[in-house]
Amino acid sequence: MTSNDTLRIDDLPVRDELRGKSPYGAPQLDVPVQLNTNENPYPLPEPLVARIAERVAEAARGLNRYPDRDAIELRTELAAYLTRTGKHRVGVENVWAANGSNEVLQQLLQTFGGPGRTAIGFEPSYSMHALIARGTGTGWISGPRNEDFTIDVAAAAQAIAENTPDVVFITSPNNPTGTAVEADTVLALYEAAQAARPSMVVVDEAYVEFSHRDSLLPLLEGRPNLVVSRTMSKAFGAAGLRLGYLAAHQAVVDAVQLVRLPYHLSAVTQATALAALEHTDTLLGYVEQLKVERDRLVTELRALGCEVTESDANFVQFGRFADTHGAWQRILDRGVLVRDNGVPGWLRVTAGTPEENDAFLDAVRELMKEQKR
Amino acid sequence: MTSNDTLRIDDLPVRDELRGKSPYGAPQLDVPVQLNTNENPYPLPEPLVARIAERVAEAARGLNRYPDRDAIELRTELAAYLTRTGKHRVGVENVWAANGSNEVLQQLLQTFGGPGRTAIGFEPSYSMHALIARGTGTGWISGPRNEDFTIDVAAAAQAIAENTPDVVFITSPNNPTGTAVEADTVLALYEAAQAARPSMVVVDEAYVEFSHRDSLLPLLEGRPNLVVSRTMSKAFGAAGLRLGYLAAHQAVVDAVQLVRLPYHLSAVTQATALAALEHTDTLLGYVEQLKVERDRLVTELRALGCEVTESDANFVQFGRFADTHGAWQRILDRGVLVRDNGVPGWLRVTAGTPEENDAFLDAVRELMKEQKR
Repeated sequence: MTSNDTLRIDDLPVRDELRGKSPYGAPQLDVPVQLNTNENPYPLPEPLVARIAERVAEAARGLNRYPDRDAIELRTELAAYLTRTGKHRVGVENVWAANGSNEVLQQLLQTFGGPGRTAIGFEPSYSMHALIARGTGTGWISGPRNEDFTIDVAAAAQAIAENTPDVVFITSPNNPTGTAVEADTVLALYEAAQAARPSMVVVDEAYVEFSHRDSLLPLLEGRPNLVVSRTMSKAFGAAGLRLGYLAAHQAVVDAVQLVRLPYHLSAVTQATALAALEHTDTLLGYVEQLKVERDRLVTELRALGCEVTESDANFVQFGRFADTHGAWQRILDRGVLVRDNGVPGWLRVTAGTPEENDAFLDAVRELMKEQKR
Repeated sequence: MTSNDTLRIDDLPVRDELRGKSPYGAPQLDVPVQLNTNENPYPLPEPLVARIAERVAEAARGLNRYPDRDAIELRTELAAYLTRTGKHRVGVENVWAANGSNEVLQQLLQTFGGPGRTAIGFEPSYSMHALIARGTGTGWISGPRNEDFTIDVAAAAQAIAENTPDVVFITSPNNPTGTAVEADTVLALYEAAQAARPSMVVVDEAYVEFSHRDSLLPLLEGRPNLVVSRTMSKAFGAAGLRLGYLAAHQAVVDAVQLVRLPYHLSAVTQATALAALEHTDTLLGYVEQLKVERDRLVTELRALGCEVTESDANFVQFGRFADTHGAWQRILDRGVLVRDNGVPGWLRVTAGTPEENDAFLDAVRELMKEQKR
């Protein structure tokens, strides 16, 4: 288009902290078995596809108008879903939705973090927490985790006391390790986060529907500085929809509306999410199948001689490999894409269909034979 | 939900600059004739609604997977549209899309503005520029405008030289005044913005399809620090879709990918936008009708004794009223909702259908009679 075709990002007046950086995202490779991004392997059932087309057509007839800025119907249905499954009553006024839980977290950091403020996470954890912190000008503090990837409450509380972060992220089940966090741990860290000065605690429950344990939603009772974030990407099999949401005190929902872009959630997104929520029971049936497969992966990987981290999610962390990237490549050579999250010695595999998991286990079997030679 | 039901936003640890603020957004009142948010009054034609349902159903069958992170097909079609209508060749590598031009602008400010940096706009203009600056920690500078709402090049260049902003917003046609900006003005301000230190210049062309003049896209040639932003909300009659985009040097497109949330644009949004682009000619036909109605509003409002600002958009600024809010209320009392954008003496009316515009003109006729008494 222009004659400056040799120009690169760093030739532009970009912010200093962006210089030399690369965009976030897993490699998108064309491989038969893709078990690298924790997607749900089950396509939406055809009756739901038809219902989505129907609801979107209805929304499209009014597409010349702005969408419901407050997404009242969608938030009402999300609240009903949480109330029904979370053992805690949640109302429309306690729920907020956005384009993926990433946008929910971005809005929370714009409201409670930002320039001159800091956030802490206990790593390894979901790497977008740190990246969204950077994108919102929030300082990032990397908190500790035990060698078995559980959170050491005393060490974590001490990190909070020393750093007095404005936002504390607790991911349960944790990504990429699969580790669930006990309610007592969240309570202890919430107390620690309130002790120095009032700070927000965000429990990221993106994978909670796959957990052996209940959601931490009931902890919201009487804790206005606690937020639970969720997504329809995993349990609802709708990664392509980009629908994340949070539950919290009404004041938190009011506060994020000070930074949300007006009409951020399109009418087609709202219509599609509402259609999916009508089919909740069917979709949660797939979740039960995936939990069985996830448990099978844990058992069979151990039988193959791998170390495996206990998993409450739709993925499993396995290892340990002296050459992590080499192991990743050897599995890829056999047509199965897993994820190297940069945790030394460990890889992460998403629970797929039984056939996909068999292909993966076959690849690991071959890999383990090689490793023994 | 919780026992803290009297808690308010300011009781939470929100950022100081958010205290006491209210969310942005026009009042959503239930009124027969809504001419307050510059929406296109023409619903999408039924063949397009059917095509949207078809493409979304197709996308829904793969909704369990993440969407195309780079939205290649959509950006290719947007580039083709710009090339065809903008008298300038634009390639897929020059186009970026997001959830509304608001998100495009937010990504630009995250990349080129942010903490410790500033942006300038020439006010009155689109008030979201200042709000998105606040949301991204970018300092905001309010630049000057002539009394007839054109930009005084010398004064604007001086404001740039004095403040050395990192981002310069130029809105053409300007909202809420409808004023187009001459190419020479943009060139002069671009030069001014490069003189002190290289700064980005963002030309917001949300309403350009309604203009008497050509797009400023050809100015991109040889100017890597220039960005043109667009939206499908107005000319494509798709405010509910939330699809904004930009054209710029490829390095700019690469740079915003450092701050964009991964998979920010859902598969249903991409599918719906692609369907709408297939119907471009039909939708641009509505634009021609709206331009005729816009010109009629200008003529008839003047005949009624109003002052009217020249308009290149799908709305008209009219006045002047000693009691602006009172005039707004008197028009509302007659069932027509227009916008009080806070420009003293002036109101803004969106060009609606001929019937809606007649209802509006009747209301103003009555108002002007009252004002003369």
